Amino acid sequence: MKAIEKYQSHFLNYLTGFNKSRNPRNLYDPVKYILEIGGKRLRPILTLMITDCFGGNTTKALDAALAIEVFHNFSLVHDDIMDNAPLRRNKKTVHEKWDINTGILSGDAMLIMAYKLFESYDADKFQRLTTLFSKTALEVCEGQQYDIDFESRFDVTIDEYIKMIEYKTAVLVASAMQMGAIIAETSIDNQKKCFEFGKNLGIAFQLQDDYLDAYGDPKSFGKQVGGDIIENKKTYLYLKAMHQGSDQDKLILKELYKSKLVVEDKISKVLEIFERSGAAQSTKDAIQYYTENAFLILESIEINDTKKGLIRDFGTELMTRSS
Amino acid sequence: MKAIEKYQSHFLNYLTGFNKSRNPRNLYDPVKYILEIGGKRLRPILTLMITDCFGGNTTKALDAALAIEVFHNFSLVHDDIMDNAPLRRNKKTVHEKWDINTGILSGDAMLIMAYKLFESYDADKFQRLTTLFSKTALEVCEGQQYDIDFESRFDVTIDEYIKMIEYKTAVLVASAMQMGAIIAETSIDNQKKCFEFGKNLGIAFQLQDDYLDAYGDPKSFGKQVGGDIIENKKTYLYLKAMHQGSDQDKLILKELYKSKLVVEDKISKVLEIFERSGAAQSTKDAIQYYTENAFLILESIEINDTKKGLIRDFGTELMTRSS
Repeated sequence: MKAIEKYQSHFLNYLTGFNKSRNPRNLYDPVKYILEIGGKRLRPILTLMITDCFGGNTTKALDAALAIEVFHNFSLVHDDIMDNAPLRRNKKTVHEKWDINTGILSGDAMLIMAYKLFESYDADKFQRLTTLFSKTALEVCEGQQYDIDFESRFDVTIDEYIKMIEYKTAVLVASAMQMGAIIAETSIDNQKKCFEFGKNLGIAFQLQDDYLDAYGDPKSFGKQVGGDIIENKKTYLYLKAMHQGSDQDKLILKELYKSKLVVEDKISKVLEIFERSGAAQSTKDAIQYYTENAFLILESIEINDTKKGLIRDFGTELMTRSS
Repeated sequence: MKAIEKYQSHFLNYLTGFNKSRNPRNLYDPVKYILEIGGKRLRPILTLMITDCFGGNTTKALDAALAIEVFHNFSLVHDDIMDNAPLRRNKKTVHEKWDINTGILSGDAMLIMAYKLFESYDADKFQRLTTLFSKTALEVCEGQQYDIDFESRFDVTIDEYIKMIEYKTAVLVASAMQMGAIIAETSIDNQKKCFEFGKNLGIAFQLQDDYLDAYGDPKSFGKQVGGDIIENKKTYLYLKAMHQGSDQDKLILKELYKSKLVVEDKISKVLEIFERSGAAQSTKDAIQYYTENAFLILESIEINDTKKGLIRDFGTELMTRSS
C-alpha cells in the first residue's frame, strides 16, 4: 500500500516537528515520550487519506490529524494509570517512567494541546472541527467509564457492550475520517457518511481485537493470546457465551471468571465453551456484519471509483489481519 | 455590594440548570458534586460583571462564565489528587469520596465540558473564546508543574515565583475578565486591558493569600494560620526571607523547613525571621505594587465612571480582606 506509506511518512515528518523540547520539561518531556514510542498512526493516516480522496490538500489536514493522535495518546496515558499498566508498546508507561502525578498533569496538557492544534483553521472550520472533537472526546470518556462499570456488573447486554466499544474506540476513528471530509470541504452528507463508515469499521475492528485475543496466531499476535481470558475480561465472546450458552456452560464460565488465579487449563476450557455455545461463530458474524455495514456506507459516498478503491483496500487490509 | 449579589445569583441559577443528572452516573455524579460544594464563584462573577460594565448582555456571558468555573473545578479535582488532599471546602475531595480513577476520568470530562460550553457562541466569538481558553488552560498546567518543581528546588528566584502564581492562579482570573470583554464586543484594546487588570489583581490576590496564611486573623481565616509554614511551603514570604535575610537567619530558616515534623515554636520562630528579614514588609509592598498596577490599568480602560467604580469597589473589597 504505497499510498498509505506516503500518508504515514507525511504525518510522521510533521509529528517530528511538533515534538520539540518545551518548558517546563517535567510537563512536556512525557508528552514527547509517549508521542515518540510509536503505534500504527492509524487515525491520523485516515484523516489524511479521506482529505486526499475528496481532493483536499493533505498538508492542511496535518493539524487535525495530529490533534486526533495527541488526543489518542492522552487517553492512553490516563487509561494506563487507571489500568495500573506498566508497559505500553513494550516501553514503560508514562506513570511508570515518571509518576502518577506526572501522568495526570502531562495528560491534561495533551488534551489542551490537541484543542490548540485546530487554531490554524479559519473560524468556520475551527468551530466544526472543535465541536466534533469535543463530542467525540466526551464519548471516549463515557466509553471508558462504561468499560470500568462493566467490570463489576453481571447483567451487561450485547447492546450495552456495543455502545461501550463504539464510544471508547469507534467514534475516534469515525471522527478522524469526518475531519478529513470537513477539511476537504465535501458535502455534509459525505461528511456524515465518512463518520458512519469509520464508526462501523471501528466497531468491527474492536470486535476483531476481542476475537484475535482468544484465537489469534501466537507467533504474530502482539500480546499474549488468551490474555483477556486470564484477566476475566467480559469481551463480546464472553457476553455471547453467557447469553446463549447452556445453563451448565454458563455456570462453569462464571466460576472460571471468578478466579484471580490462573486455573489449570482455564484458557482451553473457556475456548471450548466459546465454541460450543456458538459465541465464537456469533463474534465472527458480528465482525462481518459491521464490516459489511461499513462497506455499504462507503459505496454510497459520492467519490470516484479509484479513490473509493483506496479506502476499501485499506479497510479490507485492516479487517483481514490474523494478529 | 448589591450588584455583585445579582451577578452571583444569576450565575448560581444557571449552574443549577447545568447540574442535572447524566449517564454514566459514575462519570457525571462527581462533576455535579464538586460544582455544588460551593466556593466564592469569583471568576464567573467577574465575567458577568465585565460584560455588564461594557454594556453587554450578561445572559449571553453565562456559558463563558460557566466554562471558567467548570475548568477551575476540573483543576481542583486533579490538583487534589496530586496533593493527596482529603478535604476541599470542608467536604471530601472527589478522589476521597470515590477513588483516584474516578477523579482522573471525571476531571477529564469536566475539561471537555468546559470547552463544549463555548459552542453556543457564533463562529467568530467561539474561536476567540476557545483560543483564549486553551492558552490559559495550558498555562494553568504549566503553573501547576512549576509549583511541583519548586518543591524540590532550593534556587527559586522571586521572578520565577511570580511567574508560577501568574500561570497557576492569575491568568484564569484575567481570562474570566477578558471573556466578559469579548462577549460585550468592546475594543481589542479594552479586552487586553481587562486581561492585564485581572492578571495583576490575581497576582496581588495570591500574594495576599501567602501573607494571610502567616498573618491572617485565626478567627476568620478559613484554614489553619501558619499552615504553609507547617508544610514547608516556599511562599513569597519564605523566598524573600531566603533572599534578604541575614546569613544566620537563612540557616535557621532552612533547618526549620527541612523537618517533616512540627518543631516546637516553629511558626513563631519563622514569623520572627519573616519580620526581621523584612520579608513580611516586602510581601506587603508587593501586594500593594500589583494592586496599584491593576487599578492604574483599570483607570485607562474606556468605560464610564459609574461602571469603573463598580469594578474598583469589587477589587478593593477583594484586596482589603483580613482573612
